[in-house]
Amino acid sequence: MSIVIDLDRERQERPTPSLDALTELTQDDIQKVNQAIIARMDSPVILIPQVAGHIIAAGGKRMRPMLTLASARMCGYEGDRHVGLAGCVEFIHTATLLHDDVVDESDLRRGAASANAIWDNKSSVLVGDFLFSRAFELMVEDGNLDVLRILSQASSIIAEGEVLQLVTANDTETTEGDYLEVIRSKTAKLFAAAAEIGAVIAERPQEEWKSLDSFGHNLGMAFQLVDDVLDYSARQATLGKAVGDDFRDGKITLPIVLAFNAADEEEKSFWRRTLEDQEQKKGDFRRAVGMLEKSGALTATIERARDYGAKAHQALEPFPDSEIKTAMIEAVEFAIHRSY
Amino acid sequence: MSIVIDLDRERQERPTPSLDALTELTQDDIQKVNQAIIARMDSPVILIPQVAGHIIAAGGKRMRPMLTLASARMCGYEGDRHVGLAGCVEFIHTATLLHDDVVDESDLRRGAASANAIWDNKSSVLVGDFLFSRAFELMVEDGNLDVLRILSQASSIIAEGEVLQLVTANDTETTEGDYLEVIRSKTAKLFAAAAEIGAVIAERPQEEWKSLDSFGHNLGMAFQLVDDVLDYSARQATLGKAVGDDFRDGKITLPIVLAFNAADEEEKSFWRRTLEDQEQKKGDFRRAVGMLEKSGALTATIERARDYGAKAHQALEPFPDSEIKTAMIEAVEFAIHRSY
Repeated sequence: MSIVIDLDRERQERPTPSLDALTELTQDDIQKVNQAIIARMDSPVILIPQVAGHIIAAGGKRMRPMLTLASARMCGYEGDRHVGLAGCVEFIHTATLLHDDVVDESDLRRGAASANAIWDNKSSVLVGDFLFSRAFELMVEDGNLDVLRILSQASSIIAEGEVLQLVTANDTETTEGDYLEVIRSKTAKLFAAAAEIGAVIAERPQEEWKSLDSFGHNLGMAFQLVDDVLDYSARQATLGKAVGDDFRDGKITLPIVLAFNAADEEEKSFWRRTLEDQEQKKGDFRRAVGMLEKSGALTATIERARDYGAKAHQALEPFPDSEIKTAMIEAVEFAIHRSY
Repeated sequence: MSIVIDLDRERQERPTPSLDALTELTQDDIQKVNQAIIARMDSPVILIPQVAGHIIAAGGKRMRPMLTLASARMCGYEGDRHVGLAGCVEFIHTATLLHDDVVDESDLRRGAASANAIWDNKSSVLVGDFLFSRAFELMVEDGNLDVLRILSQASSIIAEGEVLQLVTANDTETTEGDYLEVIRSKTAKLFAAAAEIGAVIAERPQEEWKSLDSFGHNLGMAFQLVDDVLDYSARQATLGKAVGDDFRDGKITLPIVLAFNAADEEEKSFWRRTLEDQEQKKGDFRRAVGMLEKSGALTATIERARDYGAKAHQALEPFPDSEIKTAMIEAVEFAIHRSY
């Protein structure tokens, strides 16, 4: 709890936390990762670099490979294996995104056309399989069995989480426990593995592997919960960012679980109609945001995210202070602060 | 060439070649493989064992895991790691089948409803991903980096072949070279890897790895080409087996490539209409079979299969005679003899 208060104090003292420090410190390595990605997604079958290039270029923040780079560096690693392994992590993530968009029948990803919308579901399935296989090939080239174990177990757990999400999709009876289990598997596990392997290749003691696993896990949980909140954020909408995707897809996220639990019968039937039956009409999204705000579900979700953020911060305590550690702590604050 | 003649002589001297000897010799191990498969496809997310169980039970001949078991045994391997690795090979194969059926939009697999028809495409994609990840987890548990390299490279090549097949699908201009490249990647590569890893865990010299890689590759090529022929076999139809699936899906296989090359303009427009445009009417399949027979495309495809079979036989020459070697040679004859 004291850590949560510390975070508050830091937030008042400093300007808005950002990923800038982390991005700057890992900038050279990230460029090498990008080069490795481009080199290793290549194939004489040109549809592969086309589809893979589209989704990797759309890119996002490269949070996961950055975690591998940052934790390797914080652990004093001085070689260049972290670059290839960060590339593996991004390949696994990208393969998952390609398959996710097929499963969700999404036409958009981060506001741009998704690969399945430009090409088709078949291409997304098979190119995803290629990237996933290629990720394992790269890991095997690296040749560390602990890294292989961590990333292959993470991959199984991610896939298990994806199936669990499919089974619980559009089900308003989903419990908080079910939902946290889904995001633990499908989001937080790769964050955890990405961070842990940095300590493995730096040949640090196993307690440090665990600390970084915990850091990644808790950061991933916080990150996903804040993402869930942002999808219903009026402020995001005024900033011109895409909101309402989860609602449109009938996704049951933590804000919905919490609001549904506190809902009266009329409100419950609203959630069932819009999310389970996916019968949505004009004004429904606005009403959903209103109900989530009124019930306190958004604030409560942010509170959960802050708890995970505090644990992520705590997990870094065993490591001596350094520029990169400070940047990693700021990344945690950034993950949460996005919700304000 | 002499080997082809030898095969002919053996065929006259002996009754119809079958998989019986190989099945009998690997029977105990195959049961252990089946147990390992059931244990390792389990998950608290019950949709996973449901979908995986459906397709693994439909099962087929377990040719690929049997190759791992047989080649390990022929190489004098006496441990039990071949069981787990044979399970990995079957998991990779099963994951590929699940994704294949989604890509082909198939409702049937081996005459039974396919997983995507019973559940849906989403479940097939995600459970396929799970089996694929689980295969890697099992390989990592085994812990041999050469095995990991062979199977991860095979997986990338399989995925690449699947994409290549997608790109060339329904294209009557596909060349013999293109087609052989597709089946080399998507079928023969896993046969090759499955056989090779038997020699790896038996710690035999690398020349023997290569011999078994060649054995598996050539057997896989022969096997696939005969499968292509069987899909147009009048005799199969009289035996009550499913024929015409490839034709219905507009698949370009070697018999089609050869017949198209020898076709006059009227015949070419028939193939374009039925396979490229997939406009098929009653009587078209019968006409296709007639054209394939008349052009000699089926016989020519079987000839190619026999050449690969001869090479598979040849690849086993460096190994001393043994019961299991004889059974492996008979498996090659069986693969080809199915076409008669």
